[in-house]
Amino acid sequence: MNDVTAALMVIGDEILSGRTTDKNINYLATHCTAVGIRLEEVRVVSDKEDRIVEALNILRRSYDYVFTTGGIGPTHDDITAQSVAKAIGVDLVENQEAIAIMEARYPGEVLSEGRRLMARIPVGGELVKNTVSGAPGFMIENVIVMAGVPKIMQVMLDDVTPKLRTGRRLLSRTFVVQHPESTVAQLIGRLDEENEGISLGSYPYFKLGKVGTVIVLRGVDEDLLNQVCLEFVAELKRENKDFEEDLESTELKPLSFD
Amino acid sequence: MNDVTAALMVIGDEILSGRTTDKNINYLATHCTAVGIRLEEVRVVSDKEDRIVEALNILRRSYDYVFTTGGIGPTHDDITAQSVAKAIGVDLVENQEAIAIMEARYPGEVLSEGRRLMARIPVGGELVKNTVSGAPGFMIENVIVMAGVPKIMQVMLDDVTPKLRTGRRLLSRTFVVQHPESTVAQLIGRLDEENEGISLGSYPYFKLGKVGTVIVLRGVDEDLLNQVCLEFVAELKRENKDFEEDLESTELKPLSFD
Repeated sequence: MNDVTAALMVIGDEILSGRTTDKNINYLATHCTAVGIRLEEVRVVSDKEDRIVEALNILRRSYDYVFTTGGIGPTHDDITAQSVAKAIGVDLVENQEAIAIMEARYPGEVLSEGRRLMARIPVGGELVKNTVSGAPGFMIENVIVMAGVPKIMQVMLDDVTPKLRTGRRLLSRTFVVQHPESTVAQLIGRLDEENEGISLGSYPYFKLGKVGTVIVLRGVDEDLLNQVCLEFVAELKRENKDFEEDLESTELKPLSFD
Repeated sequence: MNDVTAALMVIGDEILSGRTTDKNINYLATHCTAVGIRLEEVRVVSDKEDRIVEALNILRRSYDYVFTTGGIGPTHDDITAQSVAKAIGVDLVENQEAIAIMEARYPGEVLSEGRRLMARIPVGGELVKNTVSGAPGFMIENVIVMAGVPKIMQVMLDDVTPKLRTGRRLLSRTFVVQHPESTVAQLIGRLDEENEGISLGSYPYFKLGKVGTVIVLRGVDEDLLNQVCLEFVAELKRENKDFEEDLESTELKPLSFD
């Protein structure tokens, strides 16, 4: 296995108070799955240096990469850069490349103190481009520090992704079964156990008075994945259960099981 | 201070793979703020027993309450109840009250094995009602175990909330300032530092080509909060900055600052 793992640390009191709904977790999770990085953990922590340092030190030693979002703006509660520097044990200094980027963005203006603060980067950090608003993120060791504003996070993620190692892509097939989850639980449990490398997940839904189950089969080996899907489908037919393959949620060409 | 703190553990591979967008974090965060519980941390972990046990043991010792969502259905990857039992060190047994609830819901039917699995509750756990689909959650010690399906999580949260201790409610006032965050950073940093018990957060926005900053002032002391807001407003006026109070995001009657 050449799996590459990652964690995401979302930094911000506004997520924990409920004021802001996080939009970065799902975007990053989907992106990681698509490029072949397995997101294994997410933590949302408050804007407190000791909390950020403690969580970052655990996560950066546990996973191949740690992404962070939030806390790199110009205000007093933007303490991500200083916390990352502290966790890694390097100084936080004004980065001349970052200063040049921001001066180029506001030609003829003297950089405000707030903007200068956003140019402070831990020593050894490489800049991550922000084509939306200028002020860069950075990558240092295995830690990738990005903005919390979703549009900015997304362009930063695009900029940094080519620099990351990736593993095999996790492929998936999705079925919608028009029966309660409890009636297919044994079948999917058995298939999950019998087929190493393939995992089956099931997600009940209640919609317009109907009860059903979405079943997702995942694995990196396309042939094995298709084989387990065909066995699953044969079993559903044998039990006269109604189902369909959800082609929108399926990453491969439809199976033919007629 | 009689603050009551909590953490949320979201359990589910489907959130980490990006297949499902979590809708429970923001709901629970908003609910906690409204009732006077301070949500201090969120973790999203995968459907692996050792991960759940490890995270739960840290969180339940660090906060007054730990909420969990997900992993209490009838399938092989629904391992939350067994993991909580293991973390706390009690057995997981078929709960007769839960069996009775589920039998009452499907009169005349023999409970399927899947449904019986959902009636297994750690010894000492008190049931949390699920008026949507029957199968209950539970509370054991300071751990509250709820479903991952948002509608079910929400009715469970309503059921359990009257049993929880709560602290002082955090009040907030929100202002929209039509200037970049960097131009107000020093002012809000100063007010934050000078006024213990009041925290100021700032959130830049980029909308329809306009740049601005949302500023939220929070605290439990209404008089002090209003006083700091008036000082903030007076300073914005002195600097000729455009702003308005965002009445939809503000939990108190509007200030009069004309």
